[in-house]
Amino acid sequence: MTYSVAVSGASGYAGGEILRLLASHPDVEIRTVTAHSNAGQPLIEHQPHLRSLAHLTLQETTPDVLAGHDIVFLALPHGQSGQYTQTLADTPLVIDAGADHRLTSAADWDEFYGGDFREPWTYGVPELPVAGGRQRANLVGASRIAAPGCNASTVALSLAPGVAAGVVDPSDIVSVLAVGPSGAGRSLKPHLLASELLGSASPYSVGGVHRHIPEIRQALVGAGARGDVRISFTPVLVPMARGILATTTAPIAPGVTDAEIRDAWESAYRGETFVQLLPAGRFPRTADVLGANTALLGLAIDRAANRVVVAAAVDNLVKGTAGAAIQSMNIALGLPEDRALTVNGVAP
Amino acid sequence: MTYSVAVSGASGYAGGEILRLLASHPDVEIRTVTAHSNAGQPLIEHQPHLRSLAHLTLQETTPDVLAGHDIVFLALPHGQSGQYTQTLADTPLVIDAGADHRLTSAADWDEFYGGDFREPWTYGVPELPVAGGRQRANLVGASRIAAPGCNASTVALSLAPGVAAGVVDPSDIVSVLAVGPSGAGRSLKPHLLASELLGSASPYSVGGVHRHIPEIRQALVGAGARGDVRISFTPVLVPMARGILATTTAPIAPGVTDAEIRDAWESAYRGETFVQLLPAGRFPRTADVLGANTALLGLAIDRAANRVVVAAAVDNLVKGTAGAAIQSMNIALGLPEDRALTVNGVAP
Amino acid sequence: MTYSVAVSGASGYAGGEILRLLASHPDVEIRTVTAHSNAGQPLIEHQPHLRSLAHLTLQETTPDVLAGHDIVFLALPHGQSGQYTQTLADTPLVIDAGADHRLTSAADWDEFYGGDFREPWTYGVPELPVAGGRQRANLVGASRIAAPGCNASTVALSLAPGVAAGVVDPSDIVSVLAVGPSGAGRSLKPHLLASELLGSASPYSVGGVHRHIPEIRQALVGAGARGDVRISFTPVLVPMARGILATTTAPIAPGVTDAEIRDAWESAYRGETFVQLLPAGRFPRTADVLGANTALLGLAIDRAANRVVVAAAVDNLVKGTAGAAIQSMNIALGLPEDRALTVNGVAP
Amino acid sequence: MTYSVAVSGASGYAGGEILRLLASHPDVEIRTVTAHSNAGQPLIEHQPHLRSLAHLTLQETTPDVLAGHDIVFLALPHGQSGQYTQTLADTPLVIDAGADHRLTSAADWDEFYGGDFREPWTYGVPELPVAGGRQRANLVGASRIAAPGCNASTVALSLAPGVAAGVVDPSDIVSVLAVGPSGAGRSLKPHLLASELLGSASPYSVGGVHRHIPEIRQALVGAGARGDVRISFTPVLVPMARGILATTTAPIAPGVTDAEIRDAWESAYRGETFVQLLPAGRFPRTADVLGANTALLGLAIDRAANRVVVAAAVDNLVKGTAGAAIQSMNIALGLPEDRALTVNGVAP
Repeated sequence: MTYSVAVSGASGYAGGEILRLLASHPDVEIRTVTAHSNAGQPLIEHQPHLRSLAHLTLQETTPDVLAGHDIVFLALPHGQSGQYTQTLADTPLVIDAGADHRLTSAADWDEFYGGDFREPWTYGVPELPVAGGRQRANLVGASRIAAPGCNASTVALSLAPGVAAGVVDPSDIVSVLAVGPSGAGRSLKPHLLASELLGSASPYSVGGVHRHIPEIRQALVGAGARGDVRISFTPVLVPMARGILATTTAPIAPGVTDAEIRDAWESAYRGETFVQLLPAGRFPRTADVLGANTALLGLAIDRAANRVVVAAAVDNLVKGTAGAAIQSMNIALGLPEDRALTVNGVAP
Repeated sequence: MTYSVAVSGASGYAGGEILRLLASHPDVEIRTVTAHSNAGQPLIEHQPHLRSLAHLTLQETTPDVLAGHDIVFLALPHGQSGQYTQTLADTPLVIDAGADHRLTSAADWDEFYGGDFREPWTYGVPELPVAGGRQRANLVGASRIAAPGCNASTVALSLAPGVAAGVVDPSDIVSVLAVGPSGAGRSLKPHLLASELLGSASPYSVGGVHRHIPEIRQALVGAGARGDVRISFTPVLVPMARGILATTTAPIAPGVTDAEIRDAWESAYRGETFVQLLPAGRFPRTADVLGANTALLGLAIDRAANRVVVAAAVDNLVKGTAGAAIQSMNIALGLPEDRALTVNGVAP
Repeated sequence: MTYSVAVSGASGYAGGEILRLLASHPDVEIRTVTAHSNAGQPLIEHQPHLRSLAHLTLQETTPDVLAGHDIVFLALPHGQSGQYTQTLADTPLVIDAGADHRLTSAADWDEFYGGDFREPWTYGVPELPVAGGRQRANLVGASRIAAPGCNASTVALSLAPGVAAGVVDPSDIVSVLAVGPSGAGRSLKPHLLASELLGSASPYSVGGVHRHIPEIRQALVGAGARGDVRISFTPVLVPMARGILATTTAPIAPGVTDAEIRDAWESAYRGETFVQLLPAGRFPRTADVLGANTALLGLAIDRAANRVVVAAAVDNLVKGTAGAAIQSMNIALGLPEDRALTVNGVAP
Repeated sequence: MTYSVAVSGASGYAGGEILRLLASHPDVEIRTVTAHSNAGQPLIEHQPHLRSLAHLTLQETTPDVLAGHDIVFLALPHGQSGQYTQTLADTPLVIDAGADHRLTSAADWDEFYGGDFREPWTYGVPELPVAGGRQRANLVGASRIAAPGCNASTVALSLAPGVAAGVVDPSDIVSVLAVGPSGAGRSLKPHLLASELLGSASPYSVGGVHRHIPEIRQALVGAGARGDVRISFTPVLVPMARGILATTTAPIAPGVTDAEIRDAWESAYRGETFVQLLPAGRFPRTADVLGANTALLGLAIDRAANRVVVAAAVDNLVKGTAGAAIQSMNIALGLPEDRALTVNGVAP
């Protein structure tokens, strides 16, 4: 069968990437695209790279317009998805690319986002280790899916195997990420201007205030972290449109061997298509995952510093957002998991 | 008086930056520039941005050519400076931009560099806290100066105040740096090609093998670190020609207050021209220091993670190398410390 | 049926892009990949973005290794393809991504390349207007195909409709191109280092010496240019890994109306999938074609300057090289022309 | 004496660059900085790279605030300078970095800008050939100076020597410029976002509508152009914060020799500090002029295309705007022309 699809927030970056991937998906028909201030205009005016979708016109994002599809993707600013949930009660599958349905803790929501707390949906990171297996199992047949935060899923995938296996100590994680500005969306803010970012690196949300911190903690607890999970998390904007290169370190648990450490990651992702551990001594580049749904991990064991170091490369708009959404959709619908998704990056 | 100067390695990036700064220095005359394979060619062919030095021709780097100047700058590949030291015995001031004379420990040299160990020279980071004061005092009248490693001095300046004051624990430092490729010099290596780096972030020397690690340890010990100094250090190449944005974290020492932490940095750099702590909540961008001799630091205290976070922006070729060399030269010669150096970056 | 394929030059940029596209082509099996100095190593070491091809090992580029396939792609330095032609006499389809078989004039070859002149093969730009129709017709059933030069095909596609219709004067064409460095291949040359290119724009091959000039002339003559074809051609390296933004202008022929001019381009590319004329007042960005096989054209008529201006955006490695090769292969084999090729760019 | 200075528009890019250069000028005191919506805030909040000016606070841009200085710089949006002219009647020297006082033709103003036409001021490009000499002579003692448009002065300097000497035909000039986004100012427009520009080249104002066209025409007429001056002008945004690489071509006049052509440029700029013609076969990069007041020109003669090609590199914010303003100020005041200006770029 062919599933009818609506994508809200279609003039933004996340919405655009969902559309780019869906455009090559043989099992869906993109019937409706919606936006806010740009409603009434051709999609191609706002997404000029989506040539195969030049026939689509942006409609208003209203419950009525979104209703009546098999699948609805919500790519809206944080805090806005919730208002559509009620009215989409009859929609078989809803996937939220925003944060509204990610957190299980109302306290975390209040501290890092604020506003109405919404019920948590099934988290859209299939490969994530969880109690008893992988998150994939929870996605089969799911009807409400929360696509992950791009930084959060990158760091969670980086460290969950070691946390689950007990070979690293989750109480003193440090993660620093080189990230491209597309993760911030198409927002007209001075610090996102090209003149400001070209040739420059700049940290933001320094000191424990970034919204993805509770999402990482939640994922690592779900992976079986024993004791407190604490993370020092610093994203650094760098001059590339897309991409996350996350360097995440955690103390080595007492008494574990190098082989045990490496085996934790190898066994966690063995056979996974979209999360791949590189051979020892190899580390990934974001160019290698550009446009691809792949998360590439490189692992080092630094005995002098007593830390495991994981470098992870992800395309924030694909594996970090839109690819995760569609991979999760494929699983929920019983389609081949890799449909419309590629492991090969566009490089150089 | 006017000092006569020779600069070796003048066709490289470090040599070129030394020349760019010296070109506006009223107390020196650039008499000699030398190179290896490019000897005999006009300097301007290799440094086309140095228009005011178009009259200079590259000579062979030989002891004879370098002899007879008041000041000699060595901007040679690591391991090559040492051979000139003997023959420059009569040169009043020699400044090495390479690593050969930085380390005080032969064991460190063997582990991270290899080859002949050379005597340590006075370390060229004037603002660095050392026992009893600042490194500046040691540079007054110095005749042999080792300019710092760019990453090393950035991280050392980031953390030394807290280490010296005992408000952070130096035994579990984590530092991740977004760095531009000019730090690697003008070397023809595939991973330094523009096609590889544009649009991509990639880590290197992951897992405790980067050569600047012992230099950081040495500086922090010199600043008064109690107990072991351990550092997890990961540089990430990002697509900007110049610049270092170092994110460095260390555990908060037990019982210290936020005010005590902040005061450690404020008092360390109060009155310093070239190392500036930004107000609370402000963090630097590398664009703000482009072409300038300034190191800008932003400090955050993350109680949830129990870590101090310092974000530091430095131009690797100026404050990280050539600017440090000339600032040190000014001090050694008794000239105004800021001569030929600016605090203002070229932005946007 | 499934066609067996060999790709030579597989560790380079053009070879890598051919492989990226073939990896998703359902009708081919990539059986052999070859290289020169890297023979014996895993392909993935040199093309770490091609995760789905991690099982392949680079072999020596020899006639024996290349023989026995249904299709051979040659992605070798200019001047090297010719030596394999003889020995591949039994190969049903050979596609050369180099220049060796592009030019029909031995004099042009001598002037711009030098070395042995090789027989011209069928030119791989299907949409190019030629006498009596499109180049596509010549590609049906072809057994020897010369993929185009990336700059050459971009400029030829930009102007051929106007030249063919006689609405512009081909005797005083001016074309200036902003190009990324990947077009120069993975060559270790100082001016291709990231430090040199980041933040900088630089022209090269200025003043009528670029090798793509005769190829453009030949294409425009083939499109029906009356009288001399003369072109001032200047490429400018800019800091993006991929992409060509060609601005090409030609004098307006006497007496033609704006409608006639616009109609020349509209009718030439009406119905074409991969060459699209944007609406009046719209101009393309290279981001819109990144990774895509699309050439996007914007047309302006400047009566004050008496010139037609065409801005064209192309991904040099896709529509400019590898995509053109595979599109031509599809046509030659009677497969759907767009197989394994997309019109949608990866943006932002 | 020390001149008191006010800079309006101090939170923008042009204003910021004027301040960066003035900060090292020994003959001026920056007394007042003004802005619009940011009035009341510290300058350093908006220009965090100007560390030496951290003591300044932005005031409202009003006639009263600007009055009473020896020199006032206006760095305001086009169309806003005029309202201050009357009230600054007593100010000895006013320099406008906007377009309001550049054009001598009210018709040009109406066609390309609109709004009130203002009287033309002395044009701030000292090296520009004009009837009987150089524009420098007109700037001596000037009290009202119009700093040039960055693209306009780059193209005018590129071609004026050939036009003045009659060795090129000004009736069919074609100029295509690779430009960085800082020339567009700190404006919150979607196409200026980093996500849009990184990795992408895009033309704008295509087809004869760019506002700098009449300014170029005016300059070339002033240089002695015989007959019509027509120019096809296309700027292309590329991913570098600063810089203009202008490729400008014009037909070779009948009967002139290569030596005559080259001599036109050589003799025009012989002895000039800030406009330099490179040796034959050499072409400039924008990196070579970053932060510098230098315009570097490379000249090629393409007999096959019958065109002279001039490639020019300029820092749009320095020689293109702020440097031109200060160089002109120096001349007007009888100071050394190069005070506070450098010929050396910041590279790599």
